[in-house]
Amino acid sequence: MITELVSVGTEILLGNIVNTNSAYLSEKCAQLGLSVYYQTVVGDNPKRMKEAISTALGRSDIVILTGGLGPTEDDLTKEITAEVMGFPLVEDPHSRELLEAYMKEYEKNNSQRRITANNYKQAMVPKGALVLDNHNGTAPGLIMEKDGKTAVLLPGPPMEMKPMFEEGVFPYLRRLQPEMIISQMVKICSIGESQVADEIQDLIAMQDNPTIAPYAKTGEVHLRITAKGENEKECRKLIKPVVRELKSRFGKNIFAIDEQKTLEEAVVDMLRDQGLTLALAESCTGGEIASRIVSVPGASEVFGHGFVTYSNRAKRKFLGVKKTTLKLQGSVSEKCAKEMARGGCLAAKSDICLSVTGLAGPTGGTEETPVGTVFMGCCYNDKIIVREFHFTGNREKIRQQAAAHALSFLRECMLEGVIRKD
Amino acid sequence: MITELVSVGTEILLGNIVNTNSAYLSEKCAQLGLSVYYQTVVGDNPKRMKEAISTALGRSDIVILTGGLGPTEDDLTKEITAEVMGFPLVEDPHSRELLEAYMKEYEKNNSQRRITANNYKQAMVPKGALVLDNHNGTAPGLIMEKDGKTAVLLPGPPMEMKPMFEEGVFPYLRRLQPEMIISQMVKICSIGESQVADEIQDLIAMQDNPTIAPYAKTGEVHLRITAKGENEKECRKLIKPVVRELKSRFGKNIFAIDEQKTLEEAVVDMLRDQGLTLALAESCTGGEIASRIVSVPGASEVFGHGFVTYSNRAKRKFLGVKKTTLKLQGSVSEKCAKEMARGGCLAAKSDICLSVTGLAGPTGGTEETPVGTVFMGCCYNDKIIVREFHFTGNREKIRQQAAAHALSFLRECMLEGVIRKD
Repeated sequence: MITELVSVGTEILLGNIVNTNSAYLSEKCAQLGLSVYYQTVVGDNPKRMKEAISTALGRSDIVILTGGLGPTEDDLTKEITAEVMGFPLVEDPHSRELLEAYMKEYEKNNSQRRITANNYKQAMVPKGALVLDNHNGTAPGLIMEKDGKTAVLLPGPPMEMKPMFEEGVFPYLRRLQPEMIISQMVKICSIGESQVADEIQDLIAMQDNPTIAPYAKTGEVHLRITAKGENEKECRKLIKPVVRELKSRFGKNIFAIDEQKTLEEAVVDMLRDQGLTLALAESCTGGEIASRIVSVPGASEVFGHGFVTYSNRAKRKFLGVKKTTLKLQGSVSEKCAKEMARGGCLAAKSDICLSVTGLAGPTGGTEETPVGTVFMGCCYNDKIIVREFHFTGNREKIRQQAAAHALSFLRECMLEGVIRKD
Repeated sequence: MITELVSVGTEILLGNIVNTNSAYLSEKCAQLGLSVYYQTVVGDNPKRMKEAISTALGRSDIVILTGGLGPTEDDLTKEITAEVMGFPLVEDPHSRELLEAYMKEYEKNNSQRRITANNYKQAMVPKGALVLDNHNGTAPGLIMEKDGKTAVLLPGPPMEMKPMFEEGVFPYLRRLQPEMIISQMVKICSIGESQVADEIQDLIAMQDNPTIAPYAKTGEVHLRITAKGENEKECRKLIKPVVRELKSRFGKNIFAIDEQKTLEEAVVDMLRDQGLTLALAESCTGGEIASRIVSVPGASEVFGHGFVTYSNRAKRKFLGVKKTTLKLQGSVSEKCAKEMARGGCLAAKSDICLSVTGLAGPTGGTEETPVGTVFMGCCYNDKIIVREFHFTGNREKIRQQAAAHALSFLRECMLEGVIRKD
């Protein structure tokens, strides 16, 4: 079914916010097997909104609108969509009740602010529409159907929109589909995007059902395999050989076959499974790797301490890097990465220490050590492996790539048996 | 002038990438005084592209297209826009030259890959179009004018698009404007978005020339003041009293009046100006603050060492937090934040240490210490200030807010004279 996304909000047209809703909804639609042909953004202007909504309903089967459901006079998405589709607005008693409860709670916590009567307009709904409760805000979501066309109206803030979509819209749209659609994610690290693309060129060329869609992330490539079938079992049966094929091609470089699992989670899981503790000794990444590890709930089981040793003094004092190393080889060197990793293990009394030292730029590059040069060390049981990387891009991009590749590097060391608790 | 942004690329419709180009271009257009009425995304489909481009050129004066300029058969933006506007394609010798030089360099560095003849299609340009060199890729940008309509074609990758826009398109569009447009940024921290909105409600209500547009970021609010006038001097004269008024309303909470300057840069500058060194003792933020400080080129002058003490053991060992504190008050407490800050100063021998300890969730919350509770300490000259925060949202959002507010908190301590080198 042809689907169109319409985002309403002058704040998007002014560039005040990035339209992440469309990316989220597009990925969900792809997962549902819906073909998104257009994404449109229009401001809070009645004439242009009417035009955009009419055009969308004219050329698409399903139109998903976000934004413009709030209490202010500018919020007109519901009113205009109802008008275009020919629905009168009536008050929904259940929505009114929820709204009053929410407002009471809000006023209790924000004594200086009163919610105005204007808010009650949020309890008005197109007659016959399916109403979706909003557990994270005041504006309910709506689904309207007429003449084979479906309009889905969702609040603009992602914190309200996403849970509502997952809970109410995703299952609804799945039921609209004549066929069942199931998708499965395969997440890959340690190989570049272009290499992954090369290695699955034949699979992509002959894809039909299931399809394979690659999503490039910093230091990772995600492949989504989507199958259509009469029921879940049939879909799973179609997906299975493709996942098996991908596993045989990418082997250990696959770190997750789970939608939600991140690379840092995969690393934390591996450490936990082996009962190992990790320390980090970061220079150019400056705490970025630690921050990613700490983003995993329960990371404390495996990670207790990170050193951000940005200065040479700190590298010497806290990690015991030798003065001569810094003088002769410099801080961006194999030797320094080695000494940082060993020193981190000793200082933190951890099983493993991962060290990263490099030159993120923009200045300081030389012919031998250009900007983007990064050395990483991994110490375990007094053995140390060091690897050299060369990244491109600006300071921010180099640091992000270094952090992502550091997680992959640590994972590889664990996989290759360099790190293995006896 | 009415402006429309058209992004071309199936990868956006599949949700593979977030359309940050549109946010960037929208903000730039706002800065130029151009009214963006629509943003449209269309896939690499000739029929729908033709439709979208015709519609855009019909209803807008300026259409800025991104993506679809590459060497593959799917890349059709140039061909279709030229067809819609009635321009034949001819080879541009200068573009051909640049392309050959780029490809030679590429093949030297990537010995296994050959660039195909298909690439030369990138040197074909609409006859009479203005050609914009691409210093970061192969596809040149293009500006076409006909019958009072202007089409600007830019490559899709932000790393190529942004420098090309800044260098070639921004000055071009500025010249198109009958009036000069100048804008000035005022960046605010330590006050919430809604409070800023309340305090400038009167200014926004009566705004005409200059206009004020607020942009909310995590822990920051940016206000862009944009003036139109006959020349730069006139614009600056209009902007000046507004900036003065904002300075009188927000005072020291303004951390920058410079487009590019970040909060971490402002903090690093203040530390450098006062000749002070900083250490960080992070628990729940897990290196996020260190990473933001390190993102500033030259941060090494003021920042040498950060402690990520995620475990209680690390807090004791490296920062000297007392066993009884952890036992009686717990790690998320005022006392712990104090001891972390003092211990960090001593261990790193720095002038200042900023400490952060809190509960990012999702589990572990209690009635007294709910998820989102964060304590921060700032130690200088053996004096310590502690502040308690309560953030909302998921683990990631709580950690990001904590990092942003920690930078503001440190800045406030420096401003209020708590930290002042004698």
